Amino acid sequence: MTLTDVAGFLKERDCFTILLHAYPDGDTIGSGYALCYALRKLGKQANVVCTHSIPASYFFITDGYTPQEFDTQTVVATDVATPKLLGDLAQQYPQVDLCIDHHGTNSMYAGQTYVDKDSASNAEIVLEVIEALGLPIDRYIATCVYTGLSTDTGCFKHTNTTPKTHVVAAMLMEAGADVEQIHQYMFDTKSKARLAIEKSILDSLEYHADGKVAFITVTKAMRDQAGIAENDLEGITSIPRQVEGVAIGCTIRESDRGDYKVSIRSRSTINAAEICARFGGGGHPCAAGCTFTCDLDTVKSQLAAACGQALEQEV
Amino acid sequence: MTLTDVAGFLKERDCFTILLHAYPDGDTIGSGYALCYALRKLGKQANVVCTHSIPASYFFITDGYTPQEFDTQTVVATDVATPKLLGDLAQQYPQVDLCIDHHGTNSMYAGQTYVDKDSASNAEIVLEVIEALGLPIDRYIATCVYTGLSTDTGCFKHTNTTPKTHVVAAMLMEAGADVEQIHQYMFDTKSKARLAIEKSILDSLEYHADGKVAFITVTKAMRDQAGIAENDLEGITSIPRQVEGVAIGCTIRESDRGDYKVSIRSRSTINAAEICARFGGGGHPCAAGCTFTCDLDTVKSQLAAACGQALEQEV
Repeated sequence: MTLTDVAGFLKERDCFTILLHAYPDGDTIGSGYALCYALRKLGKQANVVCTHSIPASYFFITDGYTPQEFDTQTVVATDVATPKLLGDLAQQYPQVDLCIDHHGTNSMYAGQTYVDKDSASNAEIVLEVIEALGLPIDRYIATCVYTGLSTDTGCFKHTNTTPKTHVVAAMLMEAGADVEQIHQYMFDTKSKARLAIEKSILDSLEYHADGKVAFITVTKAMRDQAGIAENDLEGITSIPRQVEGVAIGCTIRESDRGDYKVSIRSRSTINAAEICARFGGGGHPCAAGCTFTCDLDTVKSQLAAACGQALEQEV
Repeated sequence: MTLTDVAGFLKERDCFTILLHAYPDGDTIGSGYALCYALRKLGKQANVVCTHSIPASYFFITDGYTPQEFDTQTVVATDVATPKLLGDLAQQYPQVDLCIDHHGTNSMYAGQTYVDKDSASNAEIVLEVIEALGLPIDRYIATCVYTGLSTDTGCFKHTNTTPKTHVVAAMLMEAGADVEQIHQYMFDTKSKARLAIEKSILDSLEYHADGKVAFITVTKAMRDQAGIAENDLEGITSIPRQVEGVAIGCTIRESDRGDYKVSIRSRSTINAAEICARFGGGGHPCAAGCTFTCDLDTVKSQLAAACGQALEQEV
């Protein structure tokens, strides 16, 4: 599928339901809302849905959005590598017609799939789709895309950032992206609850493999004490890998259901996706995830063993 | 003075001592070392000096640098707005021949001054000077300039970032700037000591003016307990302003001498430089500093009163 094919596909159809992945982040949100807005500009009916509510900090994207009433004819997923990432929506929408994604690990579950694994963010692909649809990049689209671009690159810090990322960012700023607001709410604001949970996260830090592996743990009890919701922990996964000498940083989060969602961030010499694949998960080489249904001690020991083995195979 | 004048000035002279400001940050270090390297490429003799030692995390800039033996003929200051910021070097070099700076508050203390207050970082000006000298932008220069650019913009997050900043960043990446290493050591690595001091900093958080003003305090005792040096606290000044609802974030640091260095970071509706000017300091509208020689309680009460008054005059 080329970008022209994607644009043609969208032009031919109507009544779009756009699916975001669970625990929605800036890239799936920016992608979904930009696409929805563009389709509505084309005179189509379109909605965005997600199994989890969109965090309040994204108000500058969701303000002004109201769901439309229609029967879904076309299901589009943005930034969703596997149906599992849809959460409960997977049952509700068993057939996805089009998937726009930037994960090399996309399971090709959709009727049609457009993947560009070299794109730092999925939102940049959506930008190209909108350009292919012939729509101008206005302030709202620029804001949505910049949100995806900046959050998925850790504000131009992660290794997926390329010179092109900066060139696109410059264009989005010129197009009126509200970068001051985006930076303020995405990177520069912490609630008092967030500061409280960060303090207890720092207390949970533990090291394995001579300090080359670091774990942080966020239990439901810790979240309850700080007053933090399950999906309000964006960015914490970077904490354990930041510690000097750490090659593999693991974040273990207990969900409301009681299972454990593990996020692994690794230095470029370690393949985090391979570690997670051993536990039924996946992702990017330096950022991946998986889920455990056993107790916390077992999670930790299995994870420590797998990380230790990955270090032995370090390139 | 035009860039051509600056280039002409440098070409005519020799035996340069390049002064950095005290508590050196990425911008003064990147500026100074890039300029020194460029001058040596032109066959000149040049050294970089600073009253404080360069933090070890800048090894990718300082590795390979060795001081040369010569009698200083030309003194150049980079990113130094007033002689006071030179620390003890102010006595040693009472006459600065050329100052290259991006602070609008520059006190014009040097024989010749080139200031571009619209430049997000001073390193970008040095880049333009090096281009005016006719030198190619190689990997080392790109790495130095990217270090200044990225640290002074909070990695493209601060309000001084412009589309041009991103275009320059793209060019520096193309020129081979070692961004992965820069990001890793500037933004993505914390020592265990640093994590310990951050935990105690979070404990020191206090609010004034209905939560619109936040203070954090780092005493010498806190630093000693965590094993952190006075000049190893870069970036902590962003912590208090990050708290939801805070317009003025103040960081109070006790120096080894026992005086208190205050850094203020403010939202765009508050002029931090004006608050600091009341205590003999200065800086940018959203980022400024001053020094107190009284006891900590007095520092806090004077600062709280000044911040309260600034809030009353909020635009």
